[in-house]
Amino acid sequence: MAPVKKGILERLNAGEVVIGDGGFVFALEKRGYVKAGPWTPEATVTHPEAVRQLHREFLRAGANVMQTLTFYASDDKLENRGQTVKYTGVQINEAACDLAKQVASEGDALVAGGVCQTPSYLSCKSEAEVKAIFKKQLDVFVKKNVDFLIAEYFEHVEEAEWAVQVLKATGKPVAASMCIGPDGDLHGVSAGECAVRLVKAGAQIVGVNCHFDPMTCVKTVKLMKEGVEKAGLKAHYMVQPLAYHTPECTCQGFIELPEFPFALEPRLLTRWDMHKYAREAYNVGIRFIGGCCGFEPYHIRALTEELSAERGILPPGADYHGMWGSGLEMHTKPWVRARSRREYWENILPSSGRPLCASLSKPEHWGVTKGHADLLQHKEATSSQEMRHVLEMQKKAKSSS
Amino acid sequence: MAPVKKGILERLNAGEVVIGDGGFVFALEKRGYVKAGPWTPEATVTHPEAVRQLHREFLRAGANVMQTLTFYASDDKLENRGQTVKYTGVQINEAACDLAKQVASEGDALVAGGVCQTPSYLSCKSEAEVKAIFKKQLDVFVKKNVDFLIAEYFEHVEEAEWAVQVLKATGKPVAASMCIGPDGDLHGVSAGECAVRLVKAGAQIVGVNCHFDPMTCVKTVKLMKEGVEKAGLKAHYMVQPLAYHTPECTCQGFIELPEFPFALEPRLLTRWDMHKYAREAYNVGIRFIGGCCGFEPYHIRALTEELSAERGILPPGADYHGMWGSGLEMHTKPWVRARSRREYWENILPSSGRPLCASLSKPEHWGVTKGHADLLQHKEATSSQEMRHVLEMQKKAKSSS
Amino acid sequence: MAPVKKGILERLNAGEVVIGDGGFVFALEKRGYVKAGPWTPEATVTHPEAVRQLHREFLRAGANVMQTLTFYASDDKLENRGQTVKYTGVQINEAACDLAKQVASEGDALVAGGVCQTPSYLSCKSEAEVKAIFKKQLDVFVKKNVDFLIAEYFEHVEEAEWAVQVLKATGKPVAASMCIGPDGDLHGVSAGECAVRLVKAGAQIVGVNCHFDPMTCVKTVKLMKEGVEKAGLKAHYMVQPLAYHTPECTCQGFIELPEFPFALEPRLLTRWDMHKYAREAYNVGIRFIGGCCGFEPYHIRALTEELSAERGILPPGADYHGMWGSGLEMHTKPWVRARSRREYWENILPSSGRPLCASLSKPEHWGVTKGHADLLQHKEATSSQEMRHVLEMQKKAKSSS
Amino acid sequence: MAPVKKGILERLNAGEVVIGDGGFVFALEKRGYVKAGPWTPEATVTHPEAVRQLHREFLRAGANVMQTLTFYASDDKLENRGQTVKYTGVQINEAACDLAKQVASEGDALVAGGVCQTPSYLSCKSEAEVKAIFKKQLDVFVKKNVDFLIAEYFEHVEEAEWAVQVLKATGKPVAASMCIGPDGDLHGVSAGECAVRLVKAGAQIVGVNCHFDPMTCVKTVKLMKEGVEKAGLKAHYMVQPLAYHTPECTCQGFIELPEFPFALEPRLLTRWDMHKYAREAYNVGIRFIGGCCGFEPYHIRALTEELSAERGILPPGADYHGMWGSGLEMHTKPWVRARSRREYWENILPSSGRPLCASLSKPEHWGVTKGHADLLQHKEATSSQEMRHVLEMQKKAKSSS
Repeated sequence: MAPVKKGILERLNAGEVVIGDGGFVFALEKRGYVKAGPWTPEATVTHPEAVRQLHREFLRAGANVMQTLTFYASDDKLENRGQTVKYTGVQINEAACDLAKQVASEGDALVAGGVCQTPSYLSCKSEAEVKAIFKKQLDVFVKKNVDFLIAEYFEHVEEAEWAVQVLKATGKPVAASMCIGPDGDLHGVSAGECAVRLVKAGAQIVGVNCHFDPMTCVKTVKLMKEGVEKAGLKAHYMVQPLAYHTPECTCQGFIELPEFPFALEPRLLTRWDMHKYAREAYNVGIRFIGGCCGFEPYHIRALTEELSAERGILPPGADYHGMWGSGLEMHTKPWVRARSRREYWENILPSSGRPLCASLSKPEHWGVTKGHADLLQHKEATSSQEMRHVLEMQKKAKSSS
Repeated sequence: MAPVKKGILERLNAGEVVIGDGGFVFALEKRGYVKAGPWTPEATVTHPEAVRQLHREFLRAGANVMQTLTFYASDDKLENRGQTVKYTGVQINEAACDLAKQVASEGDALVAGGVCQTPSYLSCKSEAEVKAIFKKQLDVFVKKNVDFLIAEYFEHVEEAEWAVQVLKATGKPVAASMCIGPDGDLHGVSAGECAVRLVKAGAQIVGVNCHFDPMTCVKTVKLMKEGVEKAGLKAHYMVQPLAYHTPECTCQGFIELPEFPFALEPRLLTRWDMHKYAREAYNVGIRFIGGCCGFEPYHIRALTEELSAERGILPPGADYHGMWGSGLEMHTKPWVRARSRREYWENILPSSGRPLCASLSKPEHWGVTKGHADLLQHKEATSSQEMRHVLEMQKKAKSSS
Repeated sequence: MAPVKKGILERLNAGEVVIGDGGFVFALEKRGYVKAGPWTPEATVTHPEAVRQLHREFLRAGANVMQTLTFYASDDKLENRGQTVKYTGVQINEAACDLAKQVASEGDALVAGGVCQTPSYLSCKSEAEVKAIFKKQLDVFVKKNVDFLIAEYFEHVEEAEWAVQVLKATGKPVAASMCIGPDGDLHGVSAGECAVRLVKAGAQIVGVNCHFDPMTCVKTVKLMKEGVEKAGLKAHYMVQPLAYHTPECTCQGFIELPEFPFALEPRLLTRWDMHKYAREAYNVGIRFIGGCCGFEPYHIRALTEELSAERGILPPGADYHGMWGSGLEMHTKPWVRARSRREYWENILPSSGRPLCASLSKPEHWGVTKGHADLLQHKEATSSQEMRHVLEMQKKAKSSS
Repeated sequence: MAPVKKGILERLNAGEVVIGDGGFVFALEKRGYVKAGPWTPEATVTHPEAVRQLHREFLRAGANVMQTLTFYASDDKLENRGQTVKYTGVQINEAACDLAKQVASEGDALVAGGVCQTPSYLSCKSEAEVKAIFKKQLDVFVKKNVDFLIAEYFEHVEEAEWAVQVLKATGKPVAASMCIGPDGDLHGVSAGECAVRLVKAGAQIVGVNCHFDPMTCVKTVKLMKEGVEKAGLKAHYMVQPLAYHTPECTCQGFIELPEFPFALEPRLLTRWDMHKYAREAYNVGIRFIGGCCGFEPYHIRALTEELSAERGILPPGADYHGMWGSGLEMHTKPWVRARSRREYWENILPSSGRPLCASLSKPEHWGVTKGHADLLQHKEATSSQEMRHVLEMQKKAKSSS
């Protein structure tokens, strides 16, 4: 029998740094198991070995949290994407829990059951209806007895509060993570105010994930922390950003970029960018530090390497690396051996190899969100009439920018 | 019992397009199972599930060839990197064959046993000594009865010829692939002449892999083809390039780039770049089209999508994609739905998100190769005295460029 | 006898758009008559034909204001730069007035006498001493009877107020223009507050010049206008920005850029960028629109072309252009003729032709200003001891950024 | 009476470096005296003071050659552009000679009369007709007794030979300069062969001007020199490149760039780029080194500064500069004083300040030249029917690139 692991709050209360995992839907899209667009995670049922392997890689890279692959696995979303998904939410969520638990047991990791924003909210369903969606996923997490819960990827704090309220009922620790930037949520609530509301709703850990690059996310969590402290409240802080540089993004993050989701490659962070991110997050006082879309296992490993002195440990996967590229001492070519040094990699400004490409793009600013007719979600794929409407809207958005 | 598969030469003789797989050592380095620097593949023994999963992903993406993960798995290389590797070449090569065969049997793929350039050659060992190295790996491939053989990643045509001569003795089909660009091998032999010598040595398939980006590799194979045809010979052609843009590289390819190997991210090709590559390779008359370092399964899938009309098939993994991003029809945000069109992705010029970075780098031109003292290979990691020497050489190379 | 011209305030009160001229010291540095570093304008005495010709080119381009070339022509500055300058302030200022008046009389332009910030202020001299400096220049302007006065290029509002108070005594219209950005002056006074203080000191026209690119300057003047209106005051607004893109600059503007002053070329605005600037300035309510360092006559002409409908006139120099490149209809090559269209030039994103260069730089943030020992001004060129100190400071500034 | 100056051939035969001037039509377009499109130089008659001032600035910057502003001043061209030009070729050419002679007499400069390619040749007129055009301009040069003659800006060596043959008849020294790159003339004649033919036609000095950046032009002249030497002939060499970076251009040079002619600003060379150009040209053995479009006086001054040790002189304008930015020792801000060093400017990689712009463009490759119907020149501005045709051609050229 495995020894009882320290819980998430025990760790954070003790001042430990908890390393999160990376984003599954993007990684599995590239590996061939998730479809971009619907982004639903039926792979937990259809290809468990692929999901298990990805969990394992993040574990070996040093992740202390295995998040269940239950993103967009609510029944209303699955129904909306019904043509492609042949499994119920319960089936997908149960399989996800089993996979996360199995791999977590192979190392020092906790299992976190996750819920995220719903098409029901975007389509203006009632609080009760939206909460019922969360409750359904939660029932599986309770049955499978996960270690703690995360409400993540919320664009509107109102919906995030509802989620926290539902999760809180279980008595398990609750983390709440929004996908917002320094300008706050899509209804204009400031980052600090969002954090305060989430803490008041019952979250012990608050922060952000997805939509923005690491430095922007850290900046946002800093604003949240200031808000919480100013309100005389207490919380722990988490951050799980993109592994893509998004300096030009405004409120909707990388979804506004013309490159989303199929041409983000040149924006991918290097492992050295990750060192800077880990240091900055640590300095700001964030202690649950992980990743989201774009993160591959080596990115998580870089976080553990940067913080190895503070944490006193390196993960199993670090055997296959060498701090600051020291493995290059054994490279065939002498000029590559000359790169096995911290100073070299710490200062590199990598080129894109793309002289016809710019360094920044113009984000598309549509400025529509929950409540706008164009965001009512439905089962059917976009019809050609809708597409014409969308292309017209796009033209308008461009000419006014 | 599985039906007998068509062999590699039958396919190519019939005019079929054979899709190769992607580069394993780079992909597994990112997943945490290969160490950059030594680049040796002991993961076939220590973490077979990770290697198997990667094979499977390439298979699902449409690869018709499973190359054994036997890169740098010759005894002289393993010994050179001895501090970290605890397994013999035979153990590693046998495990690699078993994994490739198992996954190949799950789909329409052949197994190719692979050898590559040796430290012995760089250190000026004799032809007999170098050939003995190849023979040792070959014995495993014969015992495991792989479908065909590939001698790949050779910088000097002389060593590649020796490899082909050894492989040829088995009677199995032999492919020979050098890691050279349009300027030819590191001793100055032209691409066309390299190809002629390899065909004369017995290779039925010739081409290039690694070191350069797709368009540069296709250009190089075109020169090879012209050389072979001018010499009145016949061959099939293969290309397995990097998934990194390297427009500024000269003879040693991406190893000269300051970003090699840990800051290549901004150079990573998108899936749409891969469409262009597949089309160009096809137009030039290359029929064995695959990838090398940087290729992830979705890159291989893009090759099959581009050539789906010519080949009449799509791979299993294509269910999780949709041609030209058609899956985006089911995205939540209307402006992303507007991107579910070929015209959109075909013309995108993706930004780097890095305004402080340039688009091209200055390659390091050391101009040393086999025969130069700095390239004598040894067991020990670089000593601090050697490192000083190397840093001085680097300074000299810079100031003269 | 020439008809009496409408004064600057009559024009602005009538809602007219007044076009300013461009920056003389940068233009004359490139033509070989001003030395970068000292930047003093003794060319008014030594090479009047060169100064006259530049005035004339701006006049032909449509400028309604001929600023006297009296930048840094105060006696304390000339003395500081004494090794190179052999003329008194009075000589230089008188010659400058004569040249501006002569050319102004050739068209519809007014003469503005200008003073700017002094080394005395930076070196912490008293209010009386600094005011005496301004008074000395002013005496020449009164004697030569210029049309109005401009106190420009002030980094600290306190010194600008002193200048306005001195100029005001003459009864002539006074414009006050600081070289600050949206973050306010170098002592941290906000842009809005600066404007309010200048209006209260007696300036009828307020705004900014130099140090930042057009869009940043327009944004700053907008903040000034909002400050003035919020304070219940009234003023006219002016803007005379750089012709260089400076998106990454913070409080000290382009002087912080590593490219200042000898490698700014790639940042130079096109004439089409100037169209956008003129439109934006107009929309914000600015009616005195001109330029500073980097502006060449064709940049001023572009301002007049963009606003030709509003103003009902085009300048003489427009005969040698053609709106939106219409002159290209007569180009030899057909594909260049295809560019004689507004849509073409309005949307062009010009490349730098420099693939080894980035798009942005890291500004040097020294954060020192008036009151800091390193800014005490003196006659002697920097000694080698001072230079060592400066290089050390620079190193420190870099490592802390 | 002025002392007799050493002629161009005496100087070159003595091994001296002769510094050329910069491009007049581009500089005067920016100053408001030449119209882009027609590019005709009637300013010699209408605004002599502006032309004289530009000559004088180049003289002060160190130019030893005053080229008459007679570019496109042949009667067939003036007629083609007749709507705007009200003066005869003789009037314009005579005025140009007077201006060049007057300024040349103020310093150590020679006067060169220049002819360039004709619309008659492009429109397939006969050798006799084309030669008559040159003869008409030449008659003025003989009458005005210029020091030597330059046939420059030829895209086709055949027309350049005709020009040289006409000029040669006067007995004055003849220089021949084509606007070609390393790939040779527009009919596919190699650079080396072009040079040989020009020398055989009678030119004592051969080289290139315009159309390409300095490094490309130097490379082209190097090919010319190799061709001449291989043919056992002798010549002097000249180079007068653009001041714009054009690394991506192919045979028609910067005219193919989408930025031509109104958005080339970000490509403008710095003075430090000019140092590198002067050194490279010198090393290759070119001894007549000047500039063309984009060159401002400070660019020419940089050439003289780089070669001051070899030449033993600095021009008058150098008083207003200081080698390697030494004038910055007297700058107000200490961090700018820290830039008064060769090492600083020699290594700067200037940013563009334009994060939405790429570093390279796709040139338009129309591949049409003399003999193609679209290049028949006529008097009338492009009609709307022609423009439609041109836009269609452009679309075709784009889709095939």
